[in-house]
Amino acid sequence: MAEHDTIATFLDGLASAAPTPGGGGAAAISGAMGAALVSMVCNLTIGKKKYVEVEAELEDMLAQSEALRAQLTGMIAEDVAAFDAVMGAYGLPKATDEEKAARAEKIQAALKVATDVPLACCRACRAVIDLAEVVADKGNLNVISDAGVAVLTAHAGLRSAALNVYVNAKGLDDRDFADARLKELEGLLGDAGDLNEKVYDVVKAKVN
Amino acid sequence: MAEHDTIATFLDGLASAAPTPGGGGAAAISGAMGAALVSMVCNLTIGKKKYVEVEAELEDMLAQSEALRAQLTGMIAEDVAAFDAVMGAYGLPKATDEEKAARAEKIQAALKVATDVPLACCRACRAVIDLAEVVADKGNLNVISDAGVAVLTAHAGLRSAALNVYVNAKGLDDRDFADARLKELEGLLGDAGDLNEKVYDVVKAKVN
Repeated sequence: MAEHDTIATFLDGLASAAPTPGGGGAAAISGAMGAALVSMVCNLTIGKKKYVEVEAELEDMLAQSEALRAQLTGMIAEDVAAFDAVMGAYGLPKATDEEKAARAEKIQAALKVATDVPLACCRACRAVIDLAEVVADKGNLNVISDAGVAVLTAHAGLRSAALNVYVNAKGLDDRDFADARLKELEGLLGDAGDLNEKVYDVVKAKVN
Repeated sequence: MAEHDTIATFLDGLASAAPTPGGGGAAAISGAMGAALVSMVCNLTIGKKKYVEVEAELEDMLAQSEALRAQLTGMIAEDVAAFDAVMGAYGLPKATDEEKAARAEKIQAALKVATDVPLACCRACRAVIDLAEVVADKGNLNVISDAGVAVLTAHAGLRSAALNVYVNAKGLDDRDFADARLKELEGLLGDAGDLNEKVYDVVKAKVN
């Protein structure tokens, strides 16, 4: 399950009783849609006479949003791999003490990856929100609603991925590792909600 | 551009300077992912001994979420068609008074459809939020984070589609038609934000 599936196939997999894809993949797609919509607004602003003054800045935004889109798209598959690794580790034999120790070690290693993958998604979604704020302010008025959708989907992606960070960090024995991730996460969530509302209000005022 | 595109192709189209797909399609996908995740939680709860008491209720929820998922998935293509019809109407000839009148009529008819399509998306997303509230409360604790992602993505879909209702309703000459849609929209948005936060808090408490 990754970006080369059709949308319908991905949604079928999401709805099914199969453990992957799940909310982590949906979070990555939300973020990737946000990045793509920032790119769309940039692409429909750059080259227009009326917006020549912001052209250089939006070209820079576009390079950033396209890099984030590539990262977030890749995370659809990374999330599946991270989850499958955790499930695989839980499935290891545990008949002897040696097996138990090896299994516990594998579970912990897999949980660290499964904490870091959604945290990277949060980081990328937060960056998309910051870009959406700029394009909502300076982008082509004819497509400004797309800047609004960008911030809404990226914010949903951020909070969705955050839930997966919480779930996996909870199972970690290495509390220093977990606490450092949770601390970074709180920083990323920080004022994201307020920023989301601010950008939404800016866009809503422009389309009404 | 519709559900039979790959995710990567859809995202490429979203990011491009092509006018479709745009935020309306992203809204439909957000809603469809929300519905799919409600289904996932139902599918991973139904049949488990521990959850036998809620089984009948979740079977009913599952039927509803799957119907909503089908509707929302279809809206990806409906949004493109509605937008293309508006653009097509604007492109009609306007050399004579007769042509001008015919063009204006076509634009107004297309804008009515382009208002009703995202409004139907809002309606479906709102229904997904209500289902997510129930599964966050009663679903299998092992996949409860997916109920949280369901509400977040459906709420982003609702507000994203709302922006497209505003954009198209603004251009309507038939203010009775527009006002009726805007009134319904305000009802759908109503307490959706509070409900989103409530469900998110319930899920966050369960995963921490």
